[in-house]
Amino acid sequence: MTKVAITGTGLYTPTQQISNQELVDAHTASVDRFNREHAEQIAAGEIAAREHSSDEFIFKASGIRSRHVLDKSGVLDPERMYPRLPQRSNDELSLQAEICLIAAEQALKQADWRPESVDAVLVACSNLQRAYPAVAIEVQAALGAQGYAYDLNVACSSATFGIQAAVDALRAGSARSVLVINPEITSGHNNFELRDHHFIFGDACTAVLLQSLPTGYEARPESGPTHRSSGAPSPSAPSPLSPGASSATAAATAADPTADSNAARFEVLSTRLGTSFSNNIRNNFGFLNRSEEPAREPHDVVFSQNGRQVFRDVCPMVAEHIQTHLSQAGIEAQSLRRLWLHQANANMNRWIGKAVLGHTPSADEAPVILDEYANTSSAGSIIAFHKHHADLERGDTGLICSFGAGYSVGSILIRKL
Amino acid sequence: MTKVAITGTGLYTPTQQISNQELVDAHTASVDRFNREHAEQIAAGEIAAREHSSDEFIFKASGIRSRHVLDKSGVLDPERMYPRLPQRSNDELSLQAEICLIAAEQALKQADWRPESVDAVLVACSNLQRAYPAVAIEVQAALGAQGYAYDLNVACSSATFGIQAAVDALRAGSARSVLVINPEITSGHNNFELRDHHFIFGDACTAVLLQSLPTGYEARPESGPTHRSSGAPSPSAPSPLSPGASSATAAATAADPTADSNAARFEVLSTRLGTSFSNNIRNNFGFLNRSEEPAREPHDVVFSQNGRQVFRDVCPMVAEHIQTHLSQAGIEAQSLRRLWLHQANANMNRWIGKAVLGHTPSADEAPVILDEYANTSSAGSIIAFHKHHADLERGDTGLICSFGAGYSVGSILIRKL
Repeated sequence: MTKVAITGTGLYTPTQQISNQELVDAHTASVDRFNREHAEQIAAGEIAAREHSSDEFIFKASGIRSRHVLDKSGVLDPERMYPRLPQRSNDELSLQAEICLIAAEQALKQADWRPESVDAVLVACSNLQRAYPAVAIEVQAALGAQGYAYDLNVACSSATFGIQAAVDALRAGSARSVLVINPEITSGHNNFELRDHHFIFGDACTAVLLQSLPTGYEARPESGPTHRSSGAPSPSAPSPLSPGASSATAAATAADPTADSNAARFEVLSTRLGTSFSNNIRNNFGFLNRSEEPAREPHDVVFSQNGRQVFRDVCPMVAEHIQTHLSQAGIEAQSLRRLWLHQANANMNRWIGKAVLGHTPSADEAPVILDEYANTSSAGSIIAFHKHHADLERGDTGLICSFGAGYSVGSILIRKL
Repeated sequence: MTKVAITGTGLYTPTQQISNQELVDAHTASVDRFNREHAEQIAAGEIAAREHSSDEFIFKASGIRSRHVLDKSGVLDPERMYPRLPQRSNDELSLQAEICLIAAEQALKQADWRPESVDAVLVACSNLQRAYPAVAIEVQAALGAQGYAYDLNVACSSATFGIQAAVDALRAGSARSVLVINPEITSGHNNFELRDHHFIFGDACTAVLLQSLPTGYEARPESGPTHRSSGAPSPSAPSPLSPGASSATAAATAADPTADSNAARFEVLSTRLGTSFSNNIRNNFGFLNRSEEPAREPHDVVFSQNGRQVFRDVCPMVAEHIQTHLSQAGIEAQSLRRLWLHQANANMNRWIGKAVLGHTPSADEAPVILDEYANTSSAGSIIAFHKHHADLERGDTGLICSFGAGYSVGSILIRKL
């Protein structure tokens, strides 16, 4: 079967950052105002008083110290508590496409790959800016990429699900190079008014370029890869499944995965996805809201979760998923050089890491980026991978794993080339 | 490479139907009211008077005579002009999942395949009811399916893009049976107030089951397929890519694609997708709307299009896409038994059919269902296939082709088993 590799990654980090204390100050003002304005109903027991948050509470519950956002002023305005974003005309690049472009161009540069040689663009994230045209098609056009593009969504697992869709397309010959991009504007659908939710999320965008490895290419950890042929697919004999658009260009610029040892070049050994329905993380915002009677409450059309139950349900689900993936691949957990886990909660990652490895993972075994970024939904595990892969050596094996709403869990087993 | 077949299809058609005349009567009342209420601005030339529609105008422009919808009363209420849908609690099956279930169970019944042997569920449509949990995961759970599920969106082409994603997953070994479901509640995002838009859409849901063909299975049109082995994949040696969840069950119930000659059993010969960005069909409704300043106008957050330009751009794009697909597959257009085209506009389909076949296609060559259903977005070409495939004979070749917003176009080349 066609071998597939990750050949480049990219990350967009918003310049604006919010510390826990800044967030708590805005939240406290908002809570006090709410409780004051609803004093009678609260006294009458008709509604519950809102609770205060604190830096200590946030760090103990999550391990989060700060988050990056696209607009700090709107989120920290106690009268607003959500971003303030200038409306853009249809002739301007949409905000979500703009951050995709930054991450995607980084990934292409790292892979030394030309946009016009990209066959497919998948935008995979937990919330899309509009229904149509697909954001992925806008990104494809802005990049100057070929072939096809579409949007997919499975919440926090969107990146790994997108990567499997890309790997499947590459193995089946539908494409030779695929960009998977995860633009997470979580500040747009988070609930900054409630203590249990306000600290959870941050904004970011990640991109991963995946490519077919040249025919005959084989990774030999002990001696380094051999490169038996140029691997340039013949443009004169395109696969019947190939979009074909860029085969000639691809042939002219076929990537040598050994070209840049500092780049993220990892063979994808296998992928595994699983989902199991739950309402414990839910957001009922959608195009049918205007048609629904009675209208939904404001807190029903943003992020909502039962955090304690999610912890109890998802931790064992993820540990079992990873253990099954490893056993199907015939790989011992102890032989894994690194786990790049979804970055939602430090306590979850300690629990899952210990269940998989048999001991609480070190920062070297399971790097943490959520302290700075908070939960960036589907981007989290890819940020960890993007920032913490360069020290791996040829032949080292690792696992990228995302999990979250759905419930959903996806894992990608990779080996450094 | 693993052979893949469509083994079942399903269709949900809402019981409520709206004729052109009923729609025109409601539209006329709405237009007269608007023009009356804005008489001064219209007289001052500040805004344009809204135009009246008619049955003749609609049929001449589109070939549409009626459409099915989930709620007729709200759409025909001149004071409302969009559906009236009871809000459902999180403990109830969501409306979009409910119509998915009806179409999916039909497809499974036709294929004689058990839900617990389904490895993946893709919900692919032009607008999703919510961001998370994915609608596909809710459907997977309601069906009792295994493996994984996710939502994808590329507007009117979602069905064919979903089918390629499924075919890729089957060829790569990520799954052995995949349901692709297209729940189109277009009445929720259509603009029923404007003459050029109000008649375009209808509601429906389609489902397609795709499966790996047993190892060694070969279609032999002249003598009928031979079935060299049971094709049951060994559960003791699952593919490293396989979600694995249902391999044992799948092995125990491996489908014989020749079992029911009346069922939709077509080998997928090849697939081809293409996208090219355009704002000529756009809907800016999305989760960032509350953050945008200034707020968007109501008509900016529903369907909008420049119909004449779409016709000029998309017709040649689709014809060239199909011609390239056929030439890559080494198949003459004249040898195609049937074209199942996207059902948006009868004039577009005549133009495309003539460009591909060299003559205006007959109803037998390119069946029309838009006269009854109107444009059901991604469901359209699948409805045409579902209703008009039973008369094909073993070895007959046909092409399913969808196109629309993005711009996007997808084609699936199939051969009757």
